[in-house]
Amino acid sequence: MSRRFSAPIILPCDTACSVIRDGVVDVRDGRITYCGPAADAPQWDALVTELPGILLPGLVNTHAHSPMTLLRGMGGDLPLLRWLNEIIWPAEVRLRPEDVRAGMLLGSLEMLRGGVTTSAEMYFHAEEMADAVLTSGARAVLGGPIMGLPGLDWRSMIATTERWIDADGLRFGPGERIELSYAPHSAYMLPPEALRLTGESAAARGALVQIHVAEAADEDGEQRAEYGSVPRLLEEVGLLDGRVIAAHAVHLSDEDIALFAARGVGVAHCPGSNAKLASGIARLAELRAASVPVGLGTDGPASNDDLDLWAEMQLSALLARLSTKDATAVRAPDALLLATRGGATALGRDDLGALEPGRWADFVHVDADDPAFAAGLDVPDEQLLANLVWAAGSRCVADVWVAGERVVAGGEPVRVDRAKVQAEVREAAARLRA
Amino acid sequence: MSRRFSAPIILPCDTACSVIRDGVVDVRDGRITYCGPAADAPQWDALVTELPGILLPGLVNTHAHSPMTLLRGMGGDLPLLRWLNEIIWPAEVRLRPEDVRAGMLLGSLEMLRGGVTTSAEMYFHAEEMADAVLTSGARAVLGGPIMGLPGLDWRSMIATTERWIDADGLRFGPGERIELSYAPHSAYMLPPEALRLTGESAAARGALVQIHVAEAADEDGEQRAEYGSVPRLLEEVGLLDGRVIAAHAVHLSDEDIALFAARGVGVAHCPGSNAKLASGIARLAELRAASVPVGLGTDGPASNDDLDLWAEMQLSALLARLSTKDATAVRAPDALLLATRGGATALGRDDLGALEPGRWADFVHVDADDPAFAAGLDVPDEQLLANLVWAAGSRCVADVWVAGERVVAGGEPVRVDRAKVQAEVREAAARLRA
Ligand SMILES: [Zn+2]
Ligand SMILES: [Zn+2]
Repeated sequence: MSRRFSAPIILPCDTACSVIRDGVVDVRDGRITYCGPAADAPQWDALVTELPGILLPGLVNTHAHSPMTLLRGMGGDLPLLRWLNEIIWPAEVRLRPEDVRAGMLLGSLEMLRGGVTTSAEMYFHAEEMADAVLTSGARAVLGGPIMGLPGLDWRSMIATTERWIDADGLRFGPGERIELSYAPHSAYMLPPEALRLTGESAAARGALVQIHVAEAADEDGEQRAEYGSVPRLLEEVGLLDGRVIAAHAVHLSDEDIALFAARGVGVAHCPGSNAKLASGIARLAELRAASVPVGLGTDGPASNDDLDLWAEMQLSALLARLSTKDATAVRAPDALLLATRGGATALGRDDLGALEPGRWADFVHVDADDPAFAAGLDVPDEQLLANLVWAAGSRCVADVWVAGERVVAGGEPVRVDRAKVQAEVREAAARLRA
Repeated sequence: MSRRFSAPIILPCDTACSVIRDGVVDVRDGRITYCGPAADAPQWDALVTELPGILLPGLVNTHAHSPMTLLRGMGGDLPLLRWLNEIIWPAEVRLRPEDVRAGMLLGSLEMLRGGVTTSAEMYFHAEEMADAVLTSGARAVLGGPIMGLPGLDWRSMIATTERWIDADGLRFGPGERIELSYAPHSAYMLPPEALRLTGESAAARGALVQIHVAEAADEDGEQRAEYGSVPRLLEEVGLLDGRVIAAHAVHLSDEDIALFAARGVGVAHCPGSNAKLASGIARLAELRAASVPVGLGTDGPASNDDLDLWAEMQLSALLARLSTKDATAVRAPDALLLATRGGATALGRDDLGALEPGRWADFVHVDADDPAFAAGLDVPDEQLLANLVWAAGSRCVADVWVAGERVVAGGEPVRVDRAKVQAEVREAAARLRA
């Protein structure tokens, strides 16, 4: 089916972060066929939707554990180890598959309402997560978890993901909404042999590997002593031969950054989570200077709590400016690209994150009837982008499309009943607390 | 007139940050007469308003230049000096009094919609600002600016504020919505003699002095060389004898902090502005440990852009955790108190910032129909506060009262037409750009 969308402002999120005025986006079979000025657009006789605000690509959340909406705020602000031991792990043991589905569905709704169309997820019960994402109409890269805790057999966890990919394919669902991937937790939760076999299995299938790297200063002391660093270890075991995204990557040396750049490893930068847990500030300016593909991540909503990628966009710029003492270190267009095109690139997806022919028609309509845009849309480009990134926010997201299908209209999800999902989560959360 | 408000959750913002379940707030003549459990409330035969969400005090923005909504985003992310020289100062020269009124009105609406009922303001044309605040129904502490730039006579600026206070009184308007104060810009923009005379004039009238202190690392080099530090200079000239709030206060020594504590000087902590301009991170943990009264400020919306005190609440906690490497440094209730009671105390106002008998009935109703509260309101106190501070935000503010009068209903201002105000600002912004 063919559709045309017109708007006074379109932000394609090309590498220059251009601003198209009086533009159109044409969509056929869920993909973009044209994005540019209306004046240069092809002749068109199909349906046209006129939108009064700003069109931009759906945001890409490169690191999340969205079903943890179920556990949001539990334990308040306990210190990390007590919080994990006393609150989170005991609750997670009691999670049922249908709880994970409800939690993922709520997270998915929240993200869609905030303009996030794609999230990279790591959590248990990935099949329930796929079902939730297909229900909400969002898009996700789902990682089957691989962990080396007592009672968990990492070999069978690798095999589970393998079997699923071999059965359903790497991408499936309407608009290829689900991509399967491998999610080995971290180098400190798994032996090198597990990392090696995960890498082999993933590379043989062209699948992405999502892994936590260097989140806290002290977690990887043993690996660092033996291999020099976690990135070095991942390289030694061959994991970097395939597609890899490293979540957090806070404590990287210059050599680690050079290695990631040389091997095209993506980084899921999670400034909010890293700040809230006092883990540190990732070296965003250096990663960008080295051309490492960087996207933004929220991490799980149990610890960073609102799944709001607009807040991460702002925070990434604020923290980079503080840590470099340079107020121009990350500007508004830089932050916007991190949240869109950059995230897609970090996930190894050149079919998302920008409004360009051939990419999926995942896009967001921002309502300009907000004090953020009181100066109007006919302001210079740099002011428009500053107003969007610094003054607007998830509250301004009015409508969202995934693969050309409208899944949020007027700020509310189209396909599912938010009140019903919230009630399901409420019931599950009460049981987990009891 | 008497009114009673009931809600399942009331957060009075007492020093313990208690949570009252099934509570009521009684209001008479704009002030609170009771706040506590419904079960213990006095007999009542007047009107009762039942609210389904969370009641908390109106937030207090301790440092703003709200009419700069007119200049929001102009120049994008230019380096500070170029931004001031090429964009802001040339535009400010062309500001007309009616522009300032429109800009203040927009800022006032934005803040009210985000649950901020009081702001401390420094800007030109303070009479127009007072008119705007009285029109929107918000509350403000207005600082007549005192600056030592060429062409500006600081003596006459002090005299202007003096005359106004002597004519209208320190506080005036319905519900005493306006408080007048003195706003000497900074020690680097004024000679010591101006600071001395400002302090004398203010102390004689019991008025607050608002002043920028130690915002950037290098601004106060000369004062530091001569007096040791700006706080020391302010003490030497007698400015600290009266009520003072120091905005920013990023670069304070231990001695400066001890001096502020000893003299009861308030600090307007502006983490967003300080990060965006790469000024640094104020020593929040140390200020709190020394019992310096600290509130939160947005600074002007030309540079930090959304006047959102919920974002500052989160950011204050995130930056304190990063700079102390302690994830429990500032917890959810601490951040909430900074934005409410703490801000009132920093402004020297014990009649605002908490729901307690005798204080003004400035309060906010937070709508709990949001994924942030999907676990429900019947969760443990620490979870409720975590959900409010970390997962909710300005989007959840549904209704706002100032001095017992509803000024926001269902997220929109009651007294003024937002579209009309935005149109006025748009017109003024276009002229300032031209
Ligand atoms: Zn994670
Ligand atoms: Zn200021």
